[in-house]
Parts: sequence; C-alpha cells; structure tokens
Amino acid sequence: MSKNRVQIFDTTLRDGEQVPGCKLNTNQKIIIAEQLDTLGVDVIEAGFPVSSPGDFKSVEEVSKIVKNATVCGLTRANENDIKVAAQSLKYAKRPRIHTGIGTSESHIKYKFNSTPEQIIERAVNAVKYAKSFVEDVEFYAEDAGRTNNEYLARVCEAVIKAGATVLNIPDTTGYCLPEEYGAKIKYLKENVKGIDNVILSCHCHNDLGLATANAMAGVQNGARQIECTINGIGERAGNTALEEVVMIMKQHPNLNLDTNINTQMLFSTSKMVQEHMGMQVQPNKAVVGDNAFAHSSGIHQDGVIKNRETYEIMDPADVGVTESSIILTARSGRAALAYRAKNIGYELTKTQLDSVYPEFLKFADTKKEIIDNDIHQLMEISKVVNY
Amino acid sequence: MSKNRVQIFDTTLRDGEQVPGCKLNTNQKIIIAEQLDTLGVDVIEAGFPVSSPGDFKSVEEVSKIVKNATVCGLTRANENDIKVAAQSLKYAKRPRIHTGIGTSESHIKYKFNSTPEQIIERAVNAVKYAKSFVEDVEFYAEDAGRTNNEYLARVCEAVIKAGATVLNIPDTTGYCLPEEYGAKIKYLKENVKGIDNVILSCHCHNDLGLATANAMAGVQNGARQIECTINGIGERAGNTALEEVVMIMKQHPNLNLDTNINTQMLFSTSKMVQEHMGMQVQPNKAVVGDNAFAHSSGIHQDGVIKNRETYEIMDPADVGVTESSIILTARSGRAALAYRAKNIGYELTKTQLDSVYPEFLKFADTKKEIIDNDIHQLMEISKVVNY
Repeated sequence: MSKNRVQIFDTTLRDGEQVPGCKLNTNQKIIIAEQLDTLGVDVIEAGFPVSSPGDFKSVEEVSKIVKNATVCGLTRANENDIKVAAQSLKYAKRPRIHTGIGTSESHIKYKFNSTPEQIIERAVNAVKYAKSFVEDVEFYAEDAGRTNNEYLARVCEAVIKAGATVLNIPDTTGYCLPEEYGAKIKYLKENVKGIDNVILSCHCHNDLGLATANAMAGVQNGARQIECTINGIGERAGNTALEEVVMIMKQHPNLNLDTNINTQMLFSTSKMVQEHMGMQVQPNKAVVGDNAFAHSSGIHQDGVIKNRETYEIMDPADVGVTESSIILTARSGRAALAYRAKNIGYELTKTQLDSVYPEFLKFADTKKEIIDNDIHQLMEISKVVNY
Repeated sequence: MSKNRVQIFDTTLRDGEQVPGCKLNTNQKIIIAEQLDTLGVDVIEAGFPVSSPGDFKSVEEVSKIVKNATVCGLTRANENDIKVAAQSLKYAKRPRIHTGIGTSESHIKYKFNSTPEQIIERAVNAVKYAKSFVEDVEFYAEDAGRTNNEYLARVCEAVIKAGATVLNIPDTTGYCLPEEYGAKIKYLKENVKGIDNVILSCHCHNDLGLATANAMAGVQNGARQIECTINGIGERAGNTALEEVVMIMKQHPNLNLDTNINTQMLFSTSKMVQEHMGMQVQPNKAVVGDNAFAHSSGIHQDGVIKNRETYEIMDPADVGVTESSIILTARSGRAALAYRAKNIGYELTKTQLDSVYPEFLKFADTKKEIIDNDIHQLMEISKVVNY
C-alpha cells in the first residue's frame, strides 16, 4: 500500500514571524524561504501582505525566488486584503491566497458583532473574490476548535461551493484535546458535501502543549495538510513544530503517512531560524534541542554504550545531528566514565575503574559537567597512564 | 460526580536534575523541594541516592524538610541501591522507594543479557527487598512503551503480588503515540489481577513532542499518577511538563480529573527552577513561557481588546502571570495601537488614528517591537496632544 502524502504548510514566515522579537526584514525572509523550499515543504506562507508595506515587499520577493513550493499570503475576509495579497503574489509560480473569518460563537458575537448567516455570506464572498485572482484558495474558519461542528460543516460546504481548494480548521486558541480535534476532522470528512475534492488542513496552537498531538490526530482522521513552523514558534505558545510531526510520521511507518521533507536538513534549518529570529529553542526541545540526543544518567549511558537502540528511537543523523553524546555528570556511571576515558586514550582495567570512579564522583559532585580536560586531571591524580 | 484525583509525582530533582548543566547542590535541592511541597505535588522524587555521595545527602536533607509530600528515591533492581535509598529516606515522613528494571526486548537482551523470566525474578526480589524497608514501593518497568503488553501484564502482576503499591509504565524513549500509550494502560487495567489495589503511573518522554498528550491518554484510560517535571526538563527532550498536564485537567472539567496543585504558583515555580538549573524555557513554552500570554498579530489583538475570551482559554492570573500583553509590532493593527496609546494617555479620534497608523507602520517595519517611548515619539511627530 502506498503511503498517503501529507502536505507540509510552513508558516514560520507568517504565524512565526508575528511573534514579539521575531520580525524579519525582506532579505531574511528570502534566505529562510530558500531554505524551506530546499527542505521540501509544500507551501510557504510568506506573510500577511496588507499588514505593512515591508511585509508586502517580503511576500513579493519571496514569490520571485521560490522554485518548488506554493507561496501563500494571508488575508482577512475583505476585498482590500485579498486584492493586496494577490498583487504581492503576482510573481509566484504557484500562488495561494489564504482567506477566512472567525466562526466560533465568541468570534461571531464579540469580534464581528454579526450572525452565523452573515459570517457564511462574508466567507463565500471572500473565497469568490480570491478565486478571481488565483486558482488555489485556502479558507480558514478561525477558532474552528471552539466552533460547533454542525455550523462548521455548513461553513465548509458553502466555501467549497464558492471554489475553496483547501479548508483550514484552526484550533486558534490551543484548547482542543487530541480526541476532540480528531473527531472534528472526522465529522467534516463524513458530513460535508464535496469534502473529498478539497484538502483538510490542521492549524494547531500549543497553549496546553498539545499542538503536535492535535495535528497528528487530524491527519489520522483524514486531514492531508499540517500547518506548522520551524521550532514550533508562533503566536503565544506557538504552533505545531514542523520537525516533530515530520519525525513522528517517519518513525511510525504503521501510520502510513508520508511527507516530502528532507529530514537531514531539520537541524540546520532550526539553527538558521533561531539565528535570524533571535529566538532560541530550549535545550530539551524535541528533535532539534541541544540535549535531544544527549544521554546523561548512568542507567541510560550504560544502555546506549551497549546498544544505541536501548534509549534511542531516532538516528541523530536522520535529522542532521552528527552524533548522540555521552555527557559526564555526577549521575553518570562507571560505563560512561570508561567510555569517555577510552575516547581520549585511557583503556581502564576493571580495578583501575573501581579506584578512579569514587574520585570521579567527588569531583563531579562539585561541577555541572565533566569535560575531557577534567578526565585528564583525574587520570593524573589516579596515576592512570595514557596508553 | 466528584472528580478523580490524579497524583502529581514531580521528578524535577531526579530526571530533571540528571540533565547536562542542571545539577543542583543540596541547598538548591532543599529550596526547590520546599517550593514543590507548597505547590501541592503529591510525590517529590528527590534523587538517585546511590549515584553519588552528594545526591545521597540531598535526598536525606530533602526528606527532613518536606512536610506534606511523599519523598521518593530512585534505585535499580539491586540490593545495594535499595539499601542506600532506604538509608537516605530515613527522615522522610512518607518515604517511597522507586525501583525497577528494563522489560522491553531490547533492554532484556542488550542491557541485561538476560531472559524474560529472569527479569521477572529480579523485579520481584527488588520489590520484596524494598518492602522490607518501607511500605510504599513504586516499581518501574523501564521501556514499558516498547514492551509487549502481554509480558508487561505478567511483570505487573508479579510485582503487585510482591507488594508494589504503584506501577510506573514509562515510555522511556518517547516513542509511543497517545492512542498506543492509552491502549497500553487500558490493557493493564483490564488484564492484571490486583490492578485496582495499586496506582498506575505515567512517565512519558518528549522525544517526538508527545509527552504531555501521552500522559493525558494514560490518565484518561485509568492511570492515576503522572510523573512530570517543572518546565518539562529531563533526559534528552525531557519529560511531561507538570504545568501543562495540570492546566489541561483544570481547563477541561469534562475530563473529570483533578489535582492538588495550586496553579497560581506555576509561573513563580517555573522561574525558580530556571534560575537554579540555568536552564531557560523558550519564549513560546506553553503556560510558563514569556510569550504564552502575549498577543502580537493585529487580528488577535483586535479580538482580545474587544473580549479576552476570543483568543484566551486560560486566565493568566490562574497560573500566576499578572496579565496578558498587547505587543506592538509591524503586524499590529489600528485597535492595538489605539489601545496602547490610550494606556499612556493619548485618546485618539478615528481621524487621528487614520493619520498616525501609516506612520506607525513605517516605524515598526524598521524595529522588532514598538515600546511606549516609541509611541510618545510617534505622537509628537504626528502632533497628537496628550490628554
């Protein structure tokens, strides 16, 4: 059975870039867009063209240089936003306009002071207007996560009739549990006329730490596009992290889902985005954090030294990390000390190891980490000769 | 219907502390343990007593000062580890020994060069020996995530008979999908004799970004303890983040699950752990990151200014954050500019706003963020008088 392709829609340059401190100039957007294109993402959301003259220019320049991916611009459901987005995308080989409106009770009432029927009308008009400029129109039902499923299905059916090619079902506030979000996608797959002619897309936020699980629940229930960002950056607690969903699909072949991503570029892409945005990932960030492949406890190190698979479910090389590492701390055991000592030239006998290890622990209790230089010192104190 | 209580087992001082760079001295462990005790965690795993003399002392001192929580020490399945742990816990009001052994094929074969039957024997002996020191014995089936369910059930049944009070089912390598991990817990609940007399515990790692979702799948299928850390720190990509699972249960009352955590202390506890461990969370960290409650895009700001609930599913005050913030960048709209200007004394008419906004955008395109001082400058240029 051939695998189902899941499209990767990267919104690092839009949802990621709108974050405090992350704003990029046009040149930086071009550099990152080129990297994303080579990485193999299917869609690059390059910006929100109407938001500022600088962002208009960025989307325009990104459109010129992207070779393979679809280039997408965000709009609200009004003619000016859409016209400006269309202008900014005019050089794109594969342009997409991403338009939409809030559909939850809270958004309809407090944000738009409107009614469900008026919202559908505005949605349909926006899609039709966008369609007059480009073939590929994605519609977002903002706050779909908190939108009643029956009404959401009506919105979807209406915008499909109006010409939408992709339906984005965002959990805008990051509230859904995976089973809820998955059930929502399933409901739409089963109850919306024409749904099989369009792509359902997951756009999940991480306010409760569930963005990755929710996006996966979406594709396991029939969605075929995930909107995500490098390093999971984005509004508030951020979006689904591209590197996480891509590696889940790769490491779980039974899911029968596949992407076009060259995973070996994940680590370098993560570093590039961190540098340009000045937004560092934490050391324990999944897949791309500095400690993601570092083993430090004695129990784990002993296992990894015997056989990597005991504690590693991914080959670090698959995401572009040179190797996993055995870090020496006061929680490290004899096996790790012997391993690291051997790496720098000391082949310890069991007796030697027994006598050096307590000295190592005393030393390690006073320091955060033991580096090679410390090992040399320790061997000198313990009179172990370099072989 | 009264809510089901889920025990929070905090392992910041053990799984968190074994991370490169995170080692704490005894004094630091005491300070954090006191904070965790006040926060309301049910169990504090204070360390791995046999690992070093320093860690032995830390567990001993933490045992002396903790008033409410159970204090727990980690061991491998051997007599010396267990004896040393029991000694270190002798001052604890409620001591627990946490012992265990690897049960996956990979661990049995490569780590222990053993057989499934021998592993069960070692597990039973360890629990019995621990039981000779303390009443409360938790058993971990290391790499349970990759352990065959039928064999895992046999291990569980044997250690329950031997006296274990809590069964920890760790997804040691962070490989499980939520539905797999949930199904594993369900299988044990349905197939292990005596399972209703013990507590099943979830210990999930975040290698694929699923630690929080997996722990939740565990408690939704019958587990009643979550092992987690402040900020999600821990081996490699870390553990389930305490603040995430606690807030999921709080914000989703339909789950009918409850904890003893005083959520208003979450933010200050996170900051304390970051400082002592020198391990910063990323700005987009869920619940406790600097941007977790910051709104920056124009669309979102407009909504939040009209009504918080449009984009906020948690009250920042509930986790100890003073307030959400409206950050001004080139992606901000008129509503946000008017709101922030008003905060510092400028009540803009619609006409004034229309004339100031394009100036604001030009300015914002050149900067990462617009602060109050910049607004004053902008108002001066635009000749808006402070009211």
